[in-house]
Amino acid sequence: MPTKSEQTRALIIETAMRLFQERGYDRTTMRAIAQEAGVSVGNAYYYFAGKEHLIQGFYDRIAAEHQEAVRGILAEETDLEARLAGVLKAWLDIAAPYHEFAVQFFKNAADPDSPLSPFSPESEHARVEAISVHKEVLRGAKTKVAEELRDVLPELMWLAQMGLVLYWIFDRTEGRERSYRLAERGARLTARGVSLARFRVLRPLVHEVHELFTDFLPGMTKALPDPAARKEAPASDGRP
Amino acid sequence: MPTKSEQTRALIIETAMRLFQERGYDRTTMRAIAQEAGVSVGNAYYYFAGKEHLIQGFYDRIAAEHQEAVRGILAEETDLEARLAGVLKAWLDIAAPYHEFAVQFFKNAADPDSPLSPFSPESEHARVEAISVHKEVLRGAKTKVAEELRDVLPELMWLAQMGLVLYWIFDRTEGRERSYRLAERGARLTARGVSLARFRVLRPLVHEVHELFTDFLPGMTKALPDPAARKEAPASDGRP
Repeated sequence: MPTKSEQTRALIIETAMRLFQERGYDRTTMRAIAQEAGVSVGNAYYYFAGKEHLIQGFYDRIAAEHQEAVRGILAEETDLEARLAGVLKAWLDIAAPYHEFAVQFFKNAADPDSPLSPFSPESEHARVEAISVHKEVLRGAKTKVAEELRDVLPELMWLAQMGLVLYWIFDRTEGRERSYRLAERGARLTARGVSLARFRVLRPLVHEVHELFTDFLPGMTKALPDPAARKEAPASDGRP
Repeated sequence: MPTKSEQTRALIIETAMRLFQERGYDRTTMRAIAQEAGVSVGNAYYYFAGKEHLIQGFYDRIAAEHQEAVRGILAEETDLEARLAGVLKAWLDIAAPYHEFAVQFFKNAADPDSPLSPFSPESEHARVEAISVHKEVLRGAKTKVAEELRDVLPELMWLAQMGLVLYWIFDRTEGRERSYRLAERGARLTARGVSLARFRVLRPLVHEVHELFTDFLPGMTKALPDPAARKEAPASDGRP
């Protein structure tokens, strides 16, 4: 049984997502969300410090629903390609109602320095949950994976999933049919890549690819200076 | 010596790019471009059928400038990593004045079904030119490349370059310093990948990666139905 507080939280996210879809993310205010949800503005701010945090709540919920949806296939299937295809297609199923929102929201989330980006420090919780699904995909597969790649591969698989998400956003085919096909093809390719990664000669390449992504995506590393810290002043409306 | 016609063409592109930067792509009309360039609207339309075609002209010009800029390094350098790093960094140099424009233009070009996307059929000319640079990078390098990969690898290298472009668009560091570092790291990784691709066991994977991209990126293939042909009606302003 969800507590009253959990219910209110869910209601606010629900309402926000509906208003974001109806009016657009930029034009929806916290005040309007509170009003529609029938809670006080103060109460809405008690649960979420702002719109960005509502999006994080939404990411977390998608991640949780996804984990729930893949439980069956991850418990039963042992073929790596089938496990991964199942996981990717389950994500497409869950995200389907939000496709239109994703299209217009994309311009906010595409900037890797935005808190709304899946690569941002703010998105860490949802990202860690999503990567944990890929860890489980690998762990339960009969394909053998070298010890040294066990932490690296799930992150790369999640990055590939982000590629699928990008493709899905722009997919205008009926029922996002092409995205489902890409999920299958991507799963096949990934399974082949994982199985080739057992060759010792290839492992440094896998590490190098992983390092490249973690070094250059903010929020995935602390190794590089945070460019947000020395952002130029905004071009317009530069009032103090 | 450029002909009068070439000069007018260049002047229109120049003017368009300036107005796009000043007013934004969406808010700039062909009429305004013609006026600013001091040509008649009919004349402007004689050279370019619309704004999209101006962008194609711009892509073509960037590609031509890039080919010019890399001539030296491609003639002298034989190390694959150095050739590729030189080519990528030359692109960053040439694109530097257009960074601000690229940031705001991105939302138009990110949709792979848009004629403005680098993957569209409309962008084919600029794309073929850009891929030909990568063919030259490979051809003149001392690294041996299997015959069967000679057409496939340059397209994958160009795709990796598109990844760099995406990163550059969102790069807010001083002088796009991180993009230059990514160019170097990407070149190193690619050179390593190309040299590993000599192993027979890996070649099917390279082909599969290439096939995945060409099958799923519109304009790069005729194998899949063109989703633009069955685009839904626009949501607003649906007047006949």
